[in-house]
Amino acid sequence: MIRYEQKNLHPWINDDVLKALQPQVESACELLASRKGPGGDFIGWYDPSKVVPAAELDAIKEASKRIQDQSELLVTVGIGGSYLGARAVLEGLPWDEASENGVDIDFAGHHMSARDTEMLLDHLDDYEVSINVISKSGTTTEPAIAFRLLKAYMEDRYGKDEAKNRIYATTDAKKGALRKLATEEGYATFVIPDDVGGRFSVLSPVGLLPIAAAGFDIDALLAGAMDSFKTYGASTDVLTNDCLRYAASRVALYRQGKAIEILSTFEPAFHYLIEWWKQLNGESEGKNRSGLFPAGCEFSTDLHSMGQWIQEGQRNAFETFLIEEKPSASVVVPDTGDDLDGLAYLAGRELSEINLEAWKGVSLAHYDGGMPNSSLIVESMTTRTMGELIHFFERATGISCYLQGVNPFDQPGVEAYKANMFALLGKPGFEAQAQALRARL
Amino acid sequence: MIRYEQKNLHPWINDDVLKALQPQVESACELLASRKGPGGDFIGWYDPSKVVPAAELDAIKEASKRIQDQSELLVTVGIGGSYLGARAVLEGLPWDEASENGVDIDFAGHHMSARDTEMLLDHLDDYEVSINVISKSGTTTEPAIAFRLLKAYMEDRYGKDEAKNRIYATTDAKKGALRKLATEEGYATFVIPDDVGGRFSVLSPVGLLPIAAAGFDIDALLAGAMDSFKTYGASTDVLTNDCLRYAASRVALYRQGKAIEILSTFEPAFHYLIEWWKQLNGESEGKNRSGLFPAGCEFSTDLHSMGQWIQEGQRNAFETFLIEEKPSASVVVPDTGDDLDGLAYLAGRELSEINLEAWKGVSLAHYDGGMPNSSLIVESMTTRTMGELIHFFERATGISCYLQGVNPFDQPGVEAYKANMFALLGKPGFEAQAQALRARL
Repeated sequence: MIRYEQKNLHPWINDDVLKALQPQVESACELLASRKGPGGDFIGWYDPSKVVPAAELDAIKEASKRIQDQSELLVTVGIGGSYLGARAVLEGLPWDEASENGVDIDFAGHHMSARDTEMLLDHLDDYEVSINVISKSGTTTEPAIAFRLLKAYMEDRYGKDEAKNRIYATTDAKKGALRKLATEEGYATFVIPDDVGGRFSVLSPVGLLPIAAAGFDIDALLAGAMDSFKTYGASTDVLTNDCLRYAASRVALYRQGKAIEILSTFEPAFHYLIEWWKQLNGESEGKNRSGLFPAGCEFSTDLHSMGQWIQEGQRNAFETFLIEEKPSASVVVPDTGDDLDGLAYLAGRELSEINLEAWKGVSLAHYDGGMPNSSLIVESMTTRTMGELIHFFERATGISCYLQGVNPFDQPGVEAYKANMFALLGKPGFEAQAQALRARL
Repeated sequence: MIRYEQKNLHPWINDDVLKALQPQVESACELLASRKGPGGDFIGWYDPSKVVPAAELDAIKEASKRIQDQSELLVTVGIGGSYLGARAVLEGLPWDEASENGVDIDFAGHHMSARDTEMLLDHLDDYEVSINVISKSGTTTEPAIAFRLLKAYMEDRYGKDEAKNRIYATTDAKKGALRKLATEEGYATFVIPDDVGGRFSVLSPVGLLPIAAAGFDIDALLAGAMDSFKTYGASTDVLTNDCLRYAASRVALYRQGKAIEILSTFEPAFHYLIEWWKQLNGESEGKNRSGLFPAGCEFSTDLHSMGQWIQEGQRNAFETFLIEEKPSASVVVPDTGDDLDGLAYLAGRELSEINLEAWKGVSLAHYDGGMPNSSLIVESMTTRTMGELIHFFERATGISCYLQGVNPFDQPGVEAYKANMFALLGKPGFEAQAQALRARL
């Protein structure tokens, strides 16, 4: 159950502002549910019970058990949505949610840093390793390079036959280079559904295999997403449906001139959840020379970094807090028998309780500084509430984009750098572009 | 030697735009060098040779050797500038720059997450541990709580006498709770200079002790800062002095309506260097309801996340690339004997060379999308060039703020959350404020 507190958005956002958006919200809900809006072919994520067929889900669980039997470490190879979703869940969940036989997960193929890649390859020998390569096409440069390296490593270390047994491919059902290779080599394979784009794919095999291999309960994750699907799909009333309320509020704030949304948390483990959210929103909304700039803060850390700007800088942003109210971890401030550090009044108290008061104090301080803010509050972060939160954000993104009149599900701008990079790297077929670019360097 | 490429800022920035700022730049340089501008009492960082007296520098080196002899892990306790500077250097430098006897460094005291703190405390038993607690006052809530926990842990594990031998305090020369405690307990101590604020303190004992303990050459780091101090202090000409050119360009872009500066890199190891830069700029400039919003991107990762927004989103930002041209790491793309993944044209080539072409392609693609960008290029990231880069950014921040007419060296907004937090936590003396806040929750 997600709670949404919005008091600190007043007067920028109030019920009248939202009520005026009700017709647009209804239209946006209809576009999403009917799959008739722009990008409608990519709304397969919408009903979480229909993303992965039962047989595929069983196969994922079996494969994850096999990975746990054969390995200590699973290296997933992927970029964008084939990377961030799994990482957000894996690092955002407390470890006591995972079963003890879960493997460690490492991430490759999302950059081309020689330093980082060298370090990854150097420490693989310390573990028994399996690989999950995730790519719709199999030809995206960054993951394809990493997979070349890791495939060579695996075959060298384990021999060609055993390597095949340890490589799992998540890819297109029928076409593409990775599907072809997987068929030739006999890798176990999982399907990236045609109607689910990368940044909406965490609850598909893309995210589910590494999450299951790490020992988390993917049924609970999907059940949480179903909770959210039902709760926030039950009505189109912007005033009482918190997902719609959040979506409409952020759009209204953007229309009022706010250019930046800062997703702030007090839990460093949510770092990659925020990174996932940044992709989800930046890539969905950032088009047609419009769109909120999504940013993240981790407090207290960033209260002593970005805090000054948020408190007193340019007033062109708003803040959304992502709060876990009752973490399972317990740390008590020790009594030192004195008050030299001025903390005697905190002795014996739970750190998580102090952290929660910090959030309340910060939200009011930022509000008083002219930074409108609202809070999404999860009671405890469990596998199930993680699923709920993921689907909440996915729906909010879809609704926000339709309110703004942009296609939430394409990313045409991502091709621009690729074409330039191909040209500069001398890829066959890009000779003319290469010449034009070189003249400009 | 830092190279500054600015071609992709045209036409937003050209020589005429910059020339018109020359009088303001001269005034800003004079305010900084004379220490007569706002915040002039905090420009102690300006001449890197005068920040740490020779005897203190020797003491830091001796202490770092002692830490290396007694421990495998040094936990530094600090927040803001007492945290980010050291982490930026430690993670930003390649490990082959460190001597083999360097210890691992962990960071505590910059948040109040029970989950993260529990994990830290849980794994300390696996190592021989020393502590470096860094706080001007000793009463800042976050590091003071962490230090209570770690002091109790150390005394419990090693006994009170040996614990004293393993705790190092970096604090005010004379006053404050931590100075008092350190004197009473007999900790080795190091001085946070009065004229150096937190975010400018990495080249003071604050950063130097953990950096030295990790095995890096702090003389080389300081020599690099001196290189920068001399190079960019030699003239006040905005057209030929790259540090002034960078500072003036970013201010001119802000005045043209750009609200966000994105510092982008292609090296994930620069993550904390970017975080340090975000504090340096956000906390210096974000005041008087003005100031650029500093953000960071790590490519290729974020090309498949924030890349869409940068390419086609709202045109209210500009980008600065932080590039390492020749990393020491070497990884070669393997030849697979086929071209199934379309990468045959890359077989046998160095990953770092490919990464460099990606930067060139990206910078042109973003420029063509209407995103002005420039690049700061370091040939190889060494301890010395790291020092150079740090001082380059510090000077650029000071100059930018004086150009904007704000005090670069205060952070009045950081107090607001603290007062609210104290009140809500029931700190004696905050009763009235507590009542007022509770009524608003």
